[in-house]
Amino acid sequence: MEIKPYIRQANYYETDQMGVIHHSNYIRWFEEARLDYMNQAGLSYRKMEELGIIIPVLSASCQYRQSVYFGDVVEITLTPVQFTGVKFAFTYNITNQKTGQLCTTGETSHCFLNRDMKPLRLKRDYPEIYERFEAAMKN
Amino acid sequence: MEIKPYIRQANYYETDQMGVIHHSNYIRWFEEARLDYMNQAGLSYRKMEELGIIIPVLSASCQYRQSVYFGDVVEITLTPVQFTGVKFAFTYNITNQKTGQLCTTGETSHCFLNRDMKPLRLKRDYPEIYERFEAAMKN
Amino acid sequence: MEIKPYIRQANYYETDQMGVIHHSNYIRWFEEARLDYMNQAGLSYRKMEELGIIIPVLSASCQYRQSVYFGDVVEITLTPVQFTGVKFAFTYNITNQKTGQLCTTGETSHCFLNRDMKPLRLKRDYPEIYERFEAAMKN
Amino acid sequence: MEIKPYIRQANYYETDQMGVIHHSNYIRWFEEARLDYMNQAGLSYRKMEELGIIIPVLSASCQYRQSVYFGDVVEITLTPVQFTGVKFAFTYNITNQKTGQLCTTGETSHCFLNRDMKPLRLKRDYPEIYERFEAAMKN
Repeated sequence: MEIKPYIRQANYYETDQMGVIHHSNYIRWFEEARLDYMNQAGLSYRKMEELGIIIPVLSASCQYRQSVYFGDVVEITLTPVQFTGVKFAFTYNITNQKTGQLCTTGETSHCFLNRDMKPLRLKRDYPEIYERFEAAMKN
Repeated sequence: MEIKPYIRQANYYETDQMGVIHHSNYIRWFEEARLDYMNQAGLSYRKMEELGIIIPVLSASCQYRQSVYFGDVVEITLTPVQFTGVKFAFTYNITNQKTGQLCTTGETSHCFLNRDMKPLRLKRDYPEIYERFEAAMKN
Repeated sequence: MEIKPYIRQANYYETDQMGVIHHSNYIRWFEEARLDYMNQAGLSYRKMEELGIIIPVLSASCQYRQSVYFGDVVEITLTPVQFTGVKFAFTYNITNQKTGQLCTTGETSHCFLNRDMKPLRLKRDYPEIYERFEAAMKN
Repeated sequence: MEIKPYIRQANYYETDQMGVIHHSNYIRWFEEARLDYMNQAGLSYRKMEELGIIIPVLSASCQYRQSVYFGDVVEITLTPVQFTGVKFAFTYNITNQKTGQLCTTGETSHCFLNRDMKPLRLKRDYPEIYERFEAAMKN
């Protein structure tokens, strides 16, 4: 399975008075790119939540190398770095599409919960989704 | 019942590259001030949602007169302008606390829904909350 | 000149605990769609700010008819309703692309300022941009 | 010098459809608390930017232990962990004021730039601010 990078334009309302994209927004862009990645892998998060699979964020980190400016188009590529069936993690690279410059890197880790916010064993409770997830995380 | 104005400092992440608070944030400040107003009136929105009373926004408007800058402290005063038991509305004045200057005015209107997002008759279904609401809206 | 509608997917981080897109975000979507409209009309706002043309929002309003949910794809169409060279305004329709349902309507009005945040006479100071703007607003 | 923790209530518009505060907002709360810390230490960021001292974020990280809910009051305490005159870093603890529970931890690191976004030697160029900063970071 080949996953395409997520393409995104920087919005005006995401800038701050430093004249650059405010650093908090990259955490949101990571989420956009992650949900797009999962969609491409046949793992619609909307459908998973409807089934009762909640995927919260356990940790997030971000390193800011180069500013992104209003109107810039960025390409976000994800690399799966862990999948245990209980937890998983991605790393992120945000690149300026025009210059090819690496602007931001980051990582997020996640777990699986049920609707009562209790840990969920994906393999046992949703074997089909587990397999699809495992395939996506081997990418 | 006397309701105190809502005091609030403008955050850095709320600025944009024009060097002022981005115009979308005032809609959020209206919400903060409105929920504070209701809290002061004994109408905690958290508790109402727990009871199954959902209060969506039907419309919102905002007029921008003077910019608000990072670090400015603003005072937000609300005036109830309608309460029918089915709908209600507030107008808002945002004033710069230091200069006394009126920066932003606005209005929001709301209705009452139950958990199934169906209209709710507050007077019939929650008479006690209805009375408290009516008192708050006469303020 | 034919301007294409702006297409946009609703993000997870734009939802609130009511389970719908938070009402403040539509003001941001209006901005995205407006800057895209201007781009299509050869009026890059990035370039205009570089030239010293600042276009603040004078007023904004929004009517919420139907909720938009996480993952929904919306189409935003703009209609120019005023252009005097000193001020201009747009109305907005946000439609759910799948159902065709009209979800949100709104309006924003704007003026032209220079870098010192003083009013600017577009026709006198930037005649070429004035003409392009006028053509775009006749659309 | 004693720095008071930063107190903050969770806003409705900061929730997501999981029913908790969206994880991206904590990065913004860190900023609020950091600017408040600096204000208390006589280092108004507004004044520093006016002087031409820009303090961008080099990295940010966040660990989510317990959810924060709409209406919760949180206490944010900062600990300075580095100050070299060129770079500095803080760690953060976000605690639920009512329960005393530790909800979120995190860290941010920063540098000093001038208006041209070039590195700045605080000790040489702004010795008075350097000293105040050093005192605050020993806290």
